[in-house]
Amino acid sequence: MPVLTLIAGSGNPSLAAAVAAALGTKPAACLIQGFPDGELRVELHESVRGHDVFIVQPTGPPVADRLMELLLLADACRRAGADRLTAVMPYFGYARQDRRVKGREPVGARLVADLVGTAGCSRAVVVDLHSPALEACFPGTVEHLSAVTLLAESLGTAREDAVFVAPDLGAVRLAQQFSRRLGRPMATVHKVRTGPEAVEVREIVGPIQGRAPIIVDDMISTGGTVAAAVRALLAAGCVPDITVVVSHGLLVGEAARVLGDLPIGRLVTTDSVPVRADLPLPIQIVSLAPLLADVIGRLHRDESLGSLDAFR
Amino acid sequence: MPVLTLIAGSGNPSLAAAVAAALGTKPAACLIQGFPDGELRVELHESVRGHDVFIVQPTGPPVADRLMELLLLADACRRAGADRLTAVMPYFGYARQDRRVKGREPVGARLVADLVGTAGCSRAVVVDLHSPALEACFPGTVEHLSAVTLLAESLGTAREDAVFVAPDLGAVRLAQQFSRRLGRPMATVHKVRTGPEAVEVREIVGPIQGRAPIIVDDMISTGGTVAAAVRALLAAGCVPDITVVVSHGLLVGEAARVLGDLPIGRLVTTDSVPVRADLPLPIQIVSLAPLLADVIGRLHRDESLGSLDAFR
Amino acid sequence: MPVLTLIAGSGNPSLAAAVAAALGTKPAACLIQGFPDGELRVELHESVRGHDVFIVQPTGPPVADRLMELLLLADACRRAGADRLTAVMPYFGYARQDRRVKGREPVGARLVADLVGTAGCSRAVVVDLHSPALEACFPGTVEHLSAVTLLAESLGTAREDAVFVAPDLGAVRLAQQFSRRLGRPMATVHKVRTGPEAVEVREIVGPIQGRAPIIVDDMISTGGTVAAAVRALLAAGCVPDITVVVSHGLLVGEAARVLGDLPIGRLVTTDSVPVRADLPLPIQIVSLAPLLADVIGRLHRDESLGSLDAFR
Amino acid sequence: MPVLTLIAGSGNPSLAAAVAAALGTKPAACLIQGFPDGELRVELHESVRGHDVFIVQPTGPPVADRLMELLLLADACRRAGADRLTAVMPYFGYARQDRRVKGREPVGARLVADLVGTAGCSRAVVVDLHSPALEACFPGTVEHLSAVTLLAESLGTAREDAVFVAPDLGAVRLAQQFSRRLGRPMATVHKVRTGPEAVEVREIVGPIQGRAPIIVDDMISTGGTVAAAVRALLAAGCVPDITVVVSHGLLVGEAARVLGDLPIGRLVTTDSVPVRADLPLPIQIVSLAPLLADVIGRLHRDESLGSLDAFR
Amino acid sequence: MPVLTLIAGSGNPSLAAAVAAALGTKPAACLIQGFPDGELRVELHESVRGHDVFIVQPTGPPVADRLMELLLLADACRRAGADRLTAVMPYFGYARQDRRVKGREPVGARLVADLVGTAGCSRAVVVDLHSPALEACFPGTVEHLSAVTLLAESLGTAREDAVFVAPDLGAVRLAQQFSRRLGRPMATVHKVRTGPEAVEVREIVGPIQGRAPIIVDDMISTGGTVAAAVRALLAAGCVPDITVVVSHGLLVGEAARVLGDLPIGRLVTTDSVPVRADLPLPIQIVSLAPLLADVIGRLHRDESLGSLDAFR
Amino acid sequence: MPVLTLIAGSGNPSLAAAVAAALGTKPAACLIQGFPDGELRVELHESVRGHDVFIVQPTGPPVADRLMELLLLADACRRAGADRLTAVMPYFGYARQDRRVKGREPVGARLVADLVGTAGCSRAVVVDLHSPALEACFPGTVEHLSAVTLLAESLGTAREDAVFVAPDLGAVRLAQQFSRRLGRPMATVHKVRTGPEAVEVREIVGPIQGRAPIIVDDMISTGGTVAAAVRALLAAGCVPDITVVVSHGLLVGEAARVLGDLPIGRLVTTDSVPVRADLPLPIQIVSLAPLLADVIGRLHRDESLGSLDAFR
Repeated sequence: MPVLTLIAGSGNPSLAAAVAAALGTKPAACLIQGFPDGELRVELHESVRGHDVFIVQPTGPPVADRLMELLLLADACRRAGADRLTAVMPYFGYARQDRRVKGREPVGARLVADLVGTAGCSRAVVVDLHSPALEACFPGTVEHLSAVTLLAESLGTAREDAVFVAPDLGAVRLAQQFSRRLGRPMATVHKVRTGPEAVEVREIVGPIQGRAPIIVDDMISTGGTVAAAVRALLAAGCVPDITVVVSHGLLVGEAARVLGDLPIGRLVTTDSVPVRADLPLPIQIVSLAPLLADVIGRLHRDESLGSLDAFR
Repeated sequence: MPVLTLIAGSGNPSLAAAVAAALGTKPAACLIQGFPDGELRVELHESVRGHDVFIVQPTGPPVADRLMELLLLADACRRAGADRLTAVMPYFGYARQDRRVKGREPVGARLVADLVGTAGCSRAVVVDLHSPALEACFPGTVEHLSAVTLLAESLGTAREDAVFVAPDLGAVRLAQQFSRRLGRPMATVHKVRTGPEAVEVREIVGPIQGRAPIIVDDMISTGGTVAAAVRALLAAGCVPDITVVVSHGLLVGEAARVLGDLPIGRLVTTDSVPVRADLPLPIQIVSLAPLLADVIGRLHRDESLGSLDAFR
Repeated sequence: MPVLTLIAGSGNPSLAAAVAAALGTKPAACLIQGFPDGELRVELHESVRGHDVFIVQPTGPPVADRLMELLLLADACRRAGADRLTAVMPYFGYARQDRRVKGREPVGARLVADLVGTAGCSRAVVVDLHSPALEACFPGTVEHLSAVTLLAESLGTAREDAVFVAPDLGAVRLAQQFSRRLGRPMATVHKVRTGPEAVEVREIVGPIQGRAPIIVDDMISTGGTVAAAVRALLAAGCVPDITVVVSHGLLVGEAARVLGDLPIGRLVTTDSVPVRADLPLPIQIVSLAPLLADVIGRLHRDESLGSLDAFR
Repeated sequence: MPVLTLIAGSGNPSLAAAVAAALGTKPAACLIQGFPDGELRVELHESVRGHDVFIVQPTGPPVADRLMELLLLADACRRAGADRLTAVMPYFGYARQDRRVKGREPVGARLVADLVGTAGCSRAVVVDLHSPALEACFPGTVEHLSAVTLLAESLGTAREDAVFVAPDLGAVRLAQQFSRRLGRPMATVHKVRTGPEAVEVREIVGPIQGRAPIIVDDMISTGGTVAAAVRALLAAGCVPDITVVVSHGLLVGEAARVLGDLPIGRLVTTDSVPVRADLPLPIQIVSLAPLLADVIGRLHRDESLGSLDAFR
Repeated sequence: MPVLTLIAGSGNPSLAAAVAAALGTKPAACLIQGFPDGELRVELHESVRGHDVFIVQPTGPPVADRLMELLLLADACRRAGADRLTAVMPYFGYARQDRRVKGREPVGARLVADLVGTAGCSRAVVVDLHSPALEACFPGTVEHLSAVTLLAESLGTAREDAVFVAPDLGAVRLAQQFSRRLGRPMATVHKVRTGPEAVEVREIVGPIQGRAPIIVDDMISTGGTVAAAVRALLAAGCVPDITVVVSHGLLVGEAARVLGDLPIGRLVTTDSVPVRADLPLPIQIVSLAPLLADVIGRLHRDESLGSLDAFR
Repeated sequence: MPVLTLIAGSGNPSLAAAVAAALGTKPAACLIQGFPDGELRVELHESVRGHDVFIVQPTGPPVADRLMELLLLADACRRAGADRLTAVMPYFGYARQDRRVKGREPVGARLVADLVGTAGCSRAVVVDLHSPALEACFPGTVEHLSAVTLLAESLGTAREDAVFVAPDLGAVRLAQQFSRRLGRPMATVHKVRTGPEAVEVREIVGPIQGRAPIIVDDMISTGGTVAAAVRALLAAGCVPDITVVVSHGLLVGEAARVLGDLPIGRLVTTDSVPVRADLPLPIQIVSLAPLLADVIGRLHRDESLGSLDAFR
């Protein structure tokens, strides 16, 4: 069996270190350095010849730099004789560009998947992709993990009056999974346009009145979708103690301000990307490290992922 | 400008002929013949050297034969010097296998897309794919058309008490499009499991009581999903005069019996696949021929599809 | 050394089971199921991660379904992490479409070989291809086996007056191999056109008068070629006790009727495809299982095939 | 329509010039020069940007140099912006390595076809390939022409007692074509091994006694096959005035001496490769130039080859 | 002839606009917008179906964003039906990573070239690559232009005592070109290590004493190389009025401070990347727009570049 | 670990044998035979199934034959089931065609690299490529070794008055390496054109007067560059006892005569290609066998090359 080597990109070094620790190892020594002109210099300080290499690199912001770094690391490993390259991308940037909406746009998700393949990665490990059908866009194999189990466990026993809320249609599948797992009902926020000239309003389907909503989604970026859902939930008479559970906590732009103004009691997310420390609301971070370490170990030892709760 | 040549597979020869007629031409003469052992013999009787070839072949049942025929036709055209090959697949078989659900399955949709590319088609034209993100799985370019406009027009002015119903979550996007276009509300049938041991029940979100449902979906296969939705709608007190509108009317297996037992006043679908003539309910077929002819003409003349209502 | 896993397609499950048994194993548990619309659902019930997988699937009738099933199985294995995929195709459908005869046809054999490669198989094992030069059309490596040794052994000591007959030119190489191996002369049936307007007649080269012919060919489909040869042999005064030996016994269409009318004492063939049980003549089936098991075992253990009598 | 440009390799410059003349043009000015160390320097002296380029280069002896030159010319054209590259290879070296005979050999024909594709040629034009199934080994499209019509016409009216002779089984298809076209019978020389220890003898099938043989084959290399056939024909009582007709007259090694000793009245061949001027027997050379010019012109103008007698 | 469309990335919009103006057109309307999370949204507002598209995008700082934008634009064009895609990269980032220096590094230049190919560009136009042999790393064709003529013309008649100086060995070829063109001598700054422990010193070869140096190089990044050369030249007794001529004026990091301290009378460079306006020294910018417009026009019209002085 | 197998092409069989001996093995038995028409027949006499195969084949003169042989051997190995194929090319022909100089030429180095990849080699081992940036042109991985250490050691302690001389700019990097390693100064021969009409003269930079020059270069072909350098050195007053050190001693054409007329006391080179025995000057050959054996052994055992002095 080839040697397992873990490479930590700068996308989330502490997550990579935790994954390595859980595997009883350390990330391989390597240099990742920016030149004054912004080009990256990458150099591996350990041999990877014949190794089974996993590069841990979420491609969150700054997404182009993170992606370029992943590609350069992969190229370096490939040329240095790595046996097999797996891109471990707990957060997969550009996943929302999964189709052309208006007609003359790129399909960014497919492009990124192809670039990762071009750089030599024959396999990817991803977590809670924005659209499950994205699996089909990878040129090689892809293991699509779910953080639902981890997040659900972190919620503990949900209060009796809890209701899982999908803030838009894309999140219904996730809400269903939480609902089934924790035995609480679910609701969905629909965007409705009341007329050709009218503005879009949000209408809620499911029991909300007097209940404590737990909004679930795959990611939170600027917080806009969550904020709109919260306002609709409050208008529908929910208990003003809202929990937000998302796999990927990007929290960019005005997110801190937007969320800070809302009665959000807790934000639960994973460390797929580094989470900002300056947010004006209580954040609970569930580490993906044990899950990723388990999966990487199984993949390395050619063991089945079938028994994994988080696998699909 | 190269010559436009239209090849008609046996997937729906009358659709292909109508497309050709709308383009002021005829399908190219060719032989498609089954040998006694089931292998197909394909031979083009006209030159396609340097032509811009469009092969019209929905890959409905029998799907493997239809697909193989498409691949053989493409290979024949490619070897005969066709300049560019476009697979016009109004119905795209295996679209529902768009991801691995349990973990050790194929991703049939990507496989089929790759096979079509392997055979030499650099472009595909498809209609109402089961999942919009499937666009990302094609190796070449793909034009993803929608039959919603055509189907909506065929409904004329909807009765006042109409409500568009998505029979499951996958159809919500479609129901929204109909709802906006025709100015009637929408409802969604959710599958809900009431407990770990309990059976799945269907719960309806949206106004149904006393309304006339128009169920919309991308396809109807055995009719099971529609039948379950109809039962739930009736239980919810809808007017017992139900319309079903689907892009692809496969109607296989027990579909005739299943649908015949229900108070379905009308089934509206397109001719993406040939529709069975023996169904015990009124069927209205909207031809895709004008749309496909328009798109093929524009693609051939390198014109924009942007102004097309049916484009995205 | 990776684990050997054998997958049995539905092309010939009993052959696959026999191969597995000879290897001391069983085909991997998997689901192959037809949906009502004819699409296949494939699911592996065992892990193949890191395994050396051999998919046993002759692509006899219904050829498109068999091929599609093979491609789906391969795609499932590839995505599930199989280390190497070998398509074991004892009968290789579309082998006769090995070139364009009239000019605007597909080269079906190359197309099929490319499709098998596209689906992830890097190696194929085939038996008595219609044309030996087909080896060049596979994108990966191919092991081309011969059933001649097995078939010759099954004939035992040929009677003194036997003569091996090639029913057309394509079979001459096979007839030579039998002739050399069993020490009996050979003859060839030539198709001759006696004039521009005249019909084609068959002329025999070699000793026939008073001899018992053993017609050998790579395959028998509808029986037409064999029937024509038999008539020519009888006209040439052969002993009216004819043996027919073919590697692949498709026996489709009118084969039963056509052959039943002829003085064929015995038909010897292999189980490359399942052989019909309803034929009105004595059939002797030689199983390829021991040979395939031997070859698969050697390939799996990285041993040479050089000493194999059936190799080339 | 892009400009047609013809590039003449050094494989047969006078053929290329004749082809160009028949097309009303001249080969493009280019430099092909050997460095003292044997590397080739290739430089185009005319622009080929956007042109439809045909490189005329038979890959006869010295085959590796001819092939390398073709590949370098193609690479130069591709980089200089040629629109489409067609390799016109009237003689295709390595065609006889069309399969592995003993098991650990290359498949030279496929390798060469792949190399030509790697260098940028998307199409090939070839003449009388050693094995028709080689068509399947080309990655792009291939137009496989036959010189039979030209050669048959050059024979004029065959004498009454002529018989077309295939010197081995591989030539039977050719002999049949001549036989049908010129209305004379055919015969075949079979190699027969009379016993395990015995030497191989040649046995003739068909009418020879008192007839004037016209031996036909795709190529003559050292003359060994023809010489053996001639001896067998003489032993069978043929008229000692033998004609030899081959598409490709390589005539290497001892060919001059071998053939000079035989009663060969005439050797008819094409100029697919330059024919040696020093042979001690009358040679009639039929130029492929008109055929190649016709085909190149049609391909360039995107016209059908279907009406061409020499096409298949 | 397909329509020429020019797309302007945000790498140097004013250069792109000038190129377009010189071609008598305008860059196509398109949206390039950053999302709050740093992902780019790209949308073409004009049809490019069937067009001959040139994307003008130097990949200077921030290099990863510029590159990602180029790739997304290319993907959008490809999917929108562009006929041919040419990446016009006046500055090609990562060109200095042209080989592995220490052994476990990426070859960034090849990686970037491959990525550009993966995104659909079949051709690139570049200017004064760091290493001429980089041409070999592009998967498609590449037109490698030189700014030497433009820069030399901008110098006008050089003063009598001028000397062209290569600040390191990589610049010697450039210095030779200037020297020949303007009829002034050249000198080279060599880095010399005087002993194993000793520091590196710069030694000058060529006439410097009393002469006015014109330092030429392909690019200036932080100014370090130029500063070292200037110090060495001054120490060698040159006239303290130094001119610096570079193709690419990145001028990042401490460049302004570093160069401001030196007796540099003039810095001449092109607009391959936008040049900072805040430099404390006189800068003369020579626009590449006329050259790029000329080349794009010729490529579009399939004309030769051979007569172009700047071509190689 | 797979079995290591070494295949010896005919490019330098004694080098291959020495490499094998150093690895404690012998080259695999195989047949490499020329047919009378110049085609090569290649056949492996040992199984390579699953082996880690290294083909030792410098592609010196006759370069096309050597290259074709390498490609055929690779194809044979690949089809015979080799696990991994490494092309060990101590001399890499066509390396000087690393870019287009005048505009319509091939990039021979990239073409050859691509051909080697097409034939199945995923890795190459090369020595002192003409241009280091050529590394970027290989499709797979490449290990670029240097013979400088070996050559420097063979020089022993250089005489006090020695000076390392780069005969042109391309050799400066090599001269620097020798200079640093052996503690002697260096000089460079520049080609200078004194005026537009004037002939090219050679000017020397560095200390020559009264010193003993050691000319170093990557290769010597016809000896022209060395001869010109020697004449310039003598004119500059060097000691008339000159040593020439090159990695690759092709010595083709007039090399013997050219060099024989010069005061060259010693020519030191490696056995990357077989060195002519008939040269009229003392030649010292340093074998690459130990280095290649060391590298092959490390690559085979998946060990790092990092500690190798000759690696980069």
